Amino acid sequence: MSNDSTLLALHPDRLFSSDAAVIKIARELYESIKDLPIISPHGHTDPRWFNENENFGNATELFLKPDHYVFRMLYSQGIKLTDLGIPQHGEQGDLASSKAADPTKAWQLFADNYHLFAGTPSGYWLDSVFCDVFGFTEKLCSDNAQQYYQEITAQLATPEFKPHALMDRFNIEFIATTEGALDDLKHHRAIKDTPMAKRVVTSFRPDDVVDASREDFIDNVKKLGEITGKDTKTWQGYLEAIRVRRAYFITEGRATATDHGHPTALTADLSLADCESLFAKCLSGQSNEDEQELFRGQLLTELAGMSIEDGLVMQIHPGAHRNHNQPIFDFYGRDKGCDIPSQTEYVNALKPLLSKYGNHPDLNIILFTLDETTYSRELAPLAGHYPSLKLGPAWWFHDSPAGMLRFRQQTTETAGFYNTVGFNDDTRAFLSIPARHDVARRVDCRYLAELVTNHQIDIKTAHELAYQLTYGLVKKAYKLA
Amino acid sequence: MSNDSTLLALHPDRLFSSDAAVIKIARELYESIKDLPIISPHGHTDPRWFNENENFGNATELFLKPDHYVFRMLYSQGIKLTDLGIPQHGEQGDLASSKAADPTKAWQLFADNYHLFAGTPSGYWLDSVFCDVFGFTEKLCSDNAQQYYQEITAQLATPEFKPHALMDRFNIEFIATTEGALDDLKHHRAIKDTPMAKRVVTSFRPDDVVDASREDFIDNVKKLGEITGKDTKTWQGYLEAIRVRRAYFITEGRATATDHGHPTALTADLSLADCESLFAKCLSGQSNEDEQELFRGQLLTELAGMSIEDGLVMQIHPGAHRNHNQPIFDFYGRDKGCDIPSQTEYVNALKPLLSKYGNHPDLNIILFTLDETTYSRELAPLAGHYPSLKLGPAWWFHDSPAGMLRFRQQTTETAGFYNTVGFNDDTRAFLSIPARHDVARRVDCRYLAELVTNHQIDIKTAHELAYQLTYGLVKKAYKLA
Amino acid sequence: MSNDSTLLALHPDRLFSSDAAVIKIARELYESIKDLPIISPHGHTDPRWFNENENFGNATELFLKPDHYVFRMLYSQGIKLTDLGIPQHGEQGDLASSKAADPTKAWQLFADNYHLFAGTPSGYWLDSVFCDVFGFTEKLCSDNAQQYYQEITAQLATPEFKPHALMDRFNIEFIATTEGALDDLKHHRAIKDTPMAKRVVTSFRPDDVVDASREDFIDNVKKLGEITGKDTKTWQGYLEAIRVRRAYFITEGRATATDHGHPTALTADLSLADCESLFAKCLSGQSNEDEQELFRGQLLTELAGMSIEDGLVMQIHPGAHRNHNQPIFDFYGRDKGCDIPSQTEYVNALKPLLSKYGNHPDLNIILFTLDETTYSRELAPLAGHYPSLKLGPAWWFHDSPAGMLRFRQQTTETAGFYNTVGFNDDTRAFLSIPARHDVARRVDCRYLAELVTNHQIDIKTAHELAYQLTYGLVKKAYKLA
Repeated sequence: MSNDSTLLALHPDRLFSSDAAVIKIARELYESIKDLPIISPHGHTDPRWFNENENFGNATELFLKPDHYVFRMLYSQGIKLTDLGIPQHGEQGDLASSKAADPTKAWQLFADNYHLFAGTPSGYWLDSVFCDVFGFTEKLCSDNAQQYYQEITAQLATPEFKPHALMDRFNIEFIATTEGALDDLKHHRAIKDTPMAKRVVTSFRPDDVVDASREDFIDNVKKLGEITGKDTKTWQGYLEAIRVRRAYFITEGRATATDHGHPTALTADLSLADCESLFAKCLSGQSNEDEQELFRGQLLTELAGMSIEDGLVMQIHPGAHRNHNQPIFDFYGRDKGCDIPSQTEYVNALKPLLSKYGNHPDLNIILFTLDETTYSRELAPLAGHYPSLKLGPAWWFHDSPAGMLRFRQQTTETAGFYNTVGFNDDTRAFLSIPARHDVARRVDCRYLAELVTNHQIDIKTAHELAYQLTYGLVKKAYKLA
Repeated sequence: MSNDSTLLALHPDRLFSSDAAVIKIARELYESIKDLPIISPHGHTDPRWFNENENFGNATELFLKPDHYVFRMLYSQGIKLTDLGIPQHGEQGDLASSKAADPTKAWQLFADNYHLFAGTPSGYWLDSVFCDVFGFTEKLCSDNAQQYYQEITAQLATPEFKPHALMDRFNIEFIATTEGALDDLKHHRAIKDTPMAKRVVTSFRPDDVVDASREDFIDNVKKLGEITGKDTKTWQGYLEAIRVRRAYFITEGRATATDHGHPTALTADLSLADCESLFAKCLSGQSNEDEQELFRGQLLTELAGMSIEDGLVMQIHPGAHRNHNQPIFDFYGRDKGCDIPSQTEYVNALKPLLSKYGNHPDLNIILFTLDETTYSRELAPLAGHYPSLKLGPAWWFHDSPAGMLRFRQQTTETAGFYNTVGFNDDTRAFLSIPARHDVARRVDCRYLAELVTNHQIDIKTAHELAYQLTYGLVKKAYKLA
Repeated sequence: MSNDSTLLALHPDRLFSSDAAVIKIARELYESIKDLPIISPHGHTDPRWFNENENFGNATELFLKPDHYVFRMLYSQGIKLTDLGIPQHGEQGDLASSKAADPTKAWQLFADNYHLFAGTPSGYWLDSVFCDVFGFTEKLCSDNAQQYYQEITAQLATPEFKPHALMDRFNIEFIATTEGALDDLKHHRAIKDTPMAKRVVTSFRPDDVVDASREDFIDNVKKLGEITGKDTKTWQGYLEAIRVRRAYFITEGRATATDHGHPTALTADLSLADCESLFAKCLSGQSNEDEQELFRGQLLTELAGMSIEDGLVMQIHPGAHRNHNQPIFDFYGRDKGCDIPSQTEYVNALKPLLSKYGNHPDLNIILFTLDETTYSRELAPLAGHYPSLKLGPAWWFHDSPAGMLRFRQQTTETAGFYNTVGFNDDTRAFLSIPARHDVARRVDCRYLAELVTNHQIDIKTAHELAYQLTYGLVKKAYKLA
């Protein structure tokens, strides 16, 4: 153990609160659910991994470059993205500049600044992975950085670290990836007749063909027509083409859900004539921001109607201001840790969709939120009434111990437990999946333990709820039973 | 005890937190105030009960049909309102359909789904009533549903369950009902010369004659004129008529307060000419939404002026989006668990009223909120400054253990305790009144105990505050001393 | 000890929570940082005190009249400001009326109503000062009010209570005052060659010359020209004049920071031509509210550019609706406890400034907030990404035990600790400075202790963070190293 380093060990009672009475009950509950299989119904892992089953690259490649939680924090303290090896994919970017970055130097920079992650979920997940998955016993620091790098990179090259082996080791029963509407689902089709087929499925994310604010929207709609053989120059042909792709995602990718990442939760219910002219406007490239917003809103309602027809569960996660940092977008492109949540309204926004379809027994909508001020005011009251609505878990910046606890504290009393859907990891960081699910299980057990110690629920009920929050509700909500 | 059932018992330390140090102090505080009489200054019980003193009906009639907290949760999980016996009062409804529902089958459905209420205030209140009021010792479940139904229905028929007997048993010193401006206060007048007169009073709720968005507004204003003998076609006559009704509510219903359920907190202070033309517009049936909103806002200011004249305490509770679910409204009508809170602004909205009357020593406004994001930002700072403003308790969806705790945590530091007004049950569920007040008392004692164990207040102060929060402040705020 | 009085003593474990496990760790952490010097980089003490080093006046003069936290609470319960000796500085005010108020009677009124402060930070600070600074052993109450008054007033006249002596006693290493752009910094210049120079500096607050909604704006800009010898009738001359004043504040007042109290966080990045015409409009006195808002927004961006040039740290604290109570403003003037927070948006508002300068390594912005609903949604995500942004501490109404705890709970997981800047007292109440800093230290130690007992950070890390939150981060953020 190097001089200034610290022991790395995961305490068995971590996240169970500091209160002995709560810890005791939380531990009992956790014991009964900790070994349940992982259901990961919403995430961004690469389907190639599960098809090709090849080893991952080096430590920097795995932990630093794809994890914008990690590099946004380093960037916030003045560390250059180029020095971390983040590629300049943006229009004004110089891709070569970042390729030149030495991964061992990037890793050293990361280790030198590892103190920044104290108290953050990234720090928690990283420590968990370093300890649990790689077996480190001292915390990452400047002194041991290269040792860490070599050790991780070496382990990554072993058969035990191939994706399929890790899936078994992590006890992942089921994982869903997310693909755009135009994706050919190559990898999902390739595993169709393998045992992986039951465990790995896609989700249908049509943002690229419904968001007219994108530069590639017109082109995407054209491609949608080519792929499906439908006339996507007309509104009806366009809708039909989307239906065809949904069917394709169901049969070829075993999808059970769709995914919609809109800036707001706005929905609309326009007349056919208005839909047709709005679509034509968007397709002409002459639409303004309001029209693009209205179009996305109308599409959410159309997609809800399709969900009733084909049974796909609809996931809506509004409220992100994408690519807030203009220069970073210009040089580095999308997904560089620059998406900032903004205030989101649900009550008026969802009314058109809910008035049309909200009472339909075959509609299943899962609402995510980045704006936790709406938990108790809007989301829990809506989910506690509409049969078609359930609440997704504490999401993104709230996918954290305190964030999850606030979610339960602010939604349970009005929505109950049964209008929620268990945990989503929503991650592309494959190695952190067990740690993330483990956090959710621990925080839920802690929350339930507090209800027990306050005599609000009995221990038998708490056990049943621990099971439901970990395994039962997610399988039901995503129709995996 | 049936096979899958669970013991039902109310732990003496429930809601006192899980922390031994806090529980000890909370228990001491609670002991000193738990037997204080109940003051219920804002609610929706039926005055007929207190006048006619007749027994209640069956279990379904009492617990299911009138409690939209309960049936909204069942509905959110796909259970049909008709199967619960909820009548289709809406314009497109078929009243017969629901009348046909068998109350014992509805009760069975409720019992089969009783797990949905775990962790919710409804679940807590129901368990409390089942245990404390009816003496059940096992939790409601599928197996014992019919036993429960029969037992409850049988007890309800006894003399001990007549309203007057229950008032005594529940130690209810005072209860206010709420009646619309056109109500004849028949029941309140009938008890005028009985001992009940001191215990049961009305509150003046003029929404029906000040909300021009209602279909019956014009008709109501006409009736207002007929009842009062004032010319309600003119602005001055209309105001005069409202004054007359207020006086009637004071003399005939012993009202000490008014109640205003507006969509927003907007107030206005228009010129006389503008008031006259706005009133004429509203009365013509040609007003648009903005004008109706402005009219309600102007009326709040007018009503504040009248409160200064006649001394009625003014309760304002804005922020509900009423009847959000259009199909449910069309078939089942109002008050079907479809009111959803929406974001509410106070700082600008109240300024016209407060600039005109906010410093007047004879004005008393109690502000309720459904939007707890305004507690620390707007409401506590306003109440901590304006002598005319006090904060009502955690309301509606926040009338719950965690909701109440957040209310204290987020308002006390800026508004103190003495700018709050104790607890309101705001309920029509008569049997749950003791349980609801008990929750408030327990949570307040817990909050005070935490201040004591953190050495922020001493135990003597905590005792005084426990008394004030339970009994002292509410009597003062509603002028009941 | 009088009959109804209570012992006054400060418990060594106060604010460390009620949980024995947390208290133990919090105490250990607190022991290691409690004696660190006070750094007070943002406040409103009077530079005259530090220059002239004269004794303060009587108890009422010191505790009541300048502390709007205190008199707003008394006013909220119907006590007249005039009776407290608050001067009627407003345009319609009668200054003589308040001068006539007897300070001992005002003090008695305060003592008679001291129970109002139970559970508030004012109550906590006052008790701390009474006990720690003046040595009282019983709580202020009606009976001992005059004794208190005499004792405090007597002690204030002693040499030990001169400002320099108190600075040493309070262990204040550094304190910054705040002066308007036109201030001559007389007192700061006077101490230039004394040992005080290192300990007392100014901050540059240009609101008076950038806020065109002020009645004195045009006049102020004219004076700005006269003082600097620049032609402030032109946009470029105006900017140049501001640069000159910044340089003056740096050389003559040793300023390291600027301070900007705007109604919103709006920033703008207009073309030169638009800047010129907007400035001309504002200077003509013909600007409307939108133009004034846009002008303030443009200036924030200009001032950020100047900060990059001259290195001054930029403090922005938006979100106060100033002088909400119109009659109080008319009679008593500004700063009478009538400023109410309002909802504040940051994501869109800051985008123009951040897109222009947000990635610059020499820009340092510290963001304060009155709207804690933005902590987790907007502020922590912004600070956790932009290298130029740090979060100021829990501010104003949130400068309180629960307010500070919520700040850490809602910002740490996304922004980490190192994107925050320690504590600011922001006060003119000089005697309360140690108590205020002590609250922050205690709450931070409690928060860190909870992370330790939940096994989220180790004790070694907690010690380092306690040091950083108390001393390290503030010195770095304000460039005091």
